[in-house]
Amino acid sequence: MRLATRDNGMPDGELVLVSGDGSSCLPAGAQWPNLLGAIERWGEAAPALQDLSVRLAAGEGEPLAPASLRAPLPRSWQWLDGSVFDTHAKLMQVAFGTEPIENARPLMYQGMSDRFLGPCEDVPFLREEDGIDFEGEFGVIVDHVPMGTSAEEAMAHIKLIVQINDWSLRAYAVPEMKTGFGFILAKPACSMAPFAVTPDELGENWQDGRVCLDLLIDWNGERFGSASGREMDVGFHELVAHAATSRDLVAGTIIGSGTVANEAYAEVGSSCISERRAIEIIAEGKPTTGFMRFGDRVQMDAVDIHDRHPFGAIDQQITRGECS
Amino acid sequence: MRLATRDNGMPDGELVLVSGDGSSCLPAGAQWPNLLGAIERWGEAAPALQDLSVRLAAGEGEPLAPASLRAPLPRSWQWLDGSVFDTHAKLMQVAFGTEPIENARPLMYQGMSDRFLGPCEDVPFLREEDGIDFEGEFGVIVDHVPMGTSAEEAMAHIKLIVQINDWSLRAYAVPEMKTGFGFILAKPACSMAPFAVTPDELGENWQDGRVCLDLLIDWNGERFGSASGREMDVGFHELVAHAATSRDLVAGTIIGSGTVANEAYAEVGSSCISERRAIEIIAEGKPTTGFMRFGDRVQMDAVDIHDRHPFGAIDQQITRGECS
Repeated sequence: MRLATRDNGMPDGELVLVSGDGSSCLPAGAQWPNLLGAIERWGEAAPALQDLSVRLAAGEGEPLAPASLRAPLPRSWQWLDGSVFDTHAKLMQVAFGTEPIENARPLMYQGMSDRFLGPCEDVPFLREEDGIDFEGEFGVIVDHVPMGTSAEEAMAHIKLIVQINDWSLRAYAVPEMKTGFGFILAKPACSMAPFAVTPDELGENWQDGRVCLDLLIDWNGERFGSASGREMDVGFHELVAHAATSRDLVAGTIIGSGTVANEAYAEVGSSCISERRAIEIIAEGKPTTGFMRFGDRVQMDAVDIHDRHPFGAIDQQITRGECS
Repeated sequence: MRLATRDNGMPDGELVLVSGDGSSCLPAGAQWPNLLGAIERWGEAAPALQDLSVRLAAGEGEPLAPASLRAPLPRSWQWLDGSVFDTHAKLMQVAFGTEPIENARPLMYQGMSDRFLGPCEDVPFLREEDGIDFEGEFGVIVDHVPMGTSAEEAMAHIKLIVQINDWSLRAYAVPEMKTGFGFILAKPACSMAPFAVTPDELGENWQDGRVCLDLLIDWNGERFGSASGREMDVGFHELVAHAATSRDLVAGTIIGSGTVANEAYAEVGSSCISERRAIEIIAEGKPTTGFMRFGDRVQMDAVDIHDRHPFGAIDQQITRGECS
């Protein structure tokens, strides 16, 4: 199943089923008005949505207007973002000039979850000098996960998979990391690609808790990266179990992979600017690529070998925000 | 105004006004069913609740059953916890054996906000060896705060003040701090005292964005600490502005002070066990106080010089939780 959230003026939007080609949709209806409510009672919601999905495939849908789409979860109670591509972690140490982080896998921080921007929404920032950067990654949405759930058990709690741009302000990252308290200023709201999909929808590209798809990233119309999610050093099920070590995970919790990165970065490029700057530091002694400027555009789109795009595309411009 | 949330079987509970002596209450009614909804439209809600408050003072209330009370906000979209009592920060470096954190005030992490435990709810933990500790602190609840709001402007966004126990698992704290990514395992759900109060309710004890009250803490019936909130090194308005540097703060965001601590800790004691252990390390070379055991009880209650208890008391036992 592919699910999306249409803008209907409500905080959580309207849940719709989306056809395989993304051209048509069917509202989930009054019983499942939004995705947050559905994930809270997924045991009941999933078969009901599956029935609608069959009707949609039989031609019952209506045209889907891409401009009406918000993030699949426009807000949720919890967002826990991992950082489990080792290549990314190693390059970020070069970019940040920090020491290796030892004995602490998987890395994870809690970020703001009260707002996930829609796939085509403009993104306002106050200052270019904050070091505006994108981070292309994958994420999963779980139902309620009891405290102490094992990684093996956690796999069954992964109900949906999403594609995320974890917007980052690099000027704040190192000072905040040095406190040990994690990121507040460095991590404003993330964006999500339009479609949340059930794991079966990915077929053989969902393997061992990993999204085995290339994440194509274009910055101002030029290809910037095409790294695969396959090289995730810790699976999503392990991230879920880690997060649930000492807390119940509330239904609707979103767990991120961190920036997708591959060992063959020389060939596939990067999923964030900081990483490219690290590669430049290694090769040339200093970074030559600057961070984003107001008006810049970033597109992110995961693709399989049959040229299918399960999550649809993020396509956003950044704008100069205004102070209150 | 004093506000509380009564259990009515709904996720967000039922908002009630509470009398000055805490003995009676008046439901806020169908228009303001819960506090999260009220804080989202505080401009309308505040005068309506004020009217009810007058009626309550005139004797219209019903008896308040303390056992029916949940946290004033049983869940919210965002919980940002500061750590701005310098005495606490210095002692925790001793407790943790970590280096001083430089040039990074105020300290702040984002914690789980999908659940705040009620004042008398049992608190389940899986393992005593995780180093179960309490942290007594104060917090504020804001309405929507636009990105870039100054500290001066932020003061007017502080709508309610609360008292919090920030439960902590010390065994995870240092490894998580060393990642730089902040706390996930070390910070399970917090608890809240029963009453959220408007700043005017504290009178002269709300000064320069600080709660100038002694926070009395008893562990298993023995006085453990009575530190004052007055010595907060950064005011709540400054914490709010800091948090809003690069994000809008969603209405209902709760911002914490971190563990209340005073320079005169030899006289007033501490608001968490770790800090007492640090004091023991300084005095005797090693800690002698252990962390909490299953069945232990902690009470927290802020009191003014007239023996008034604006937030009511937290009174909780910890229990052995079960794995899924």
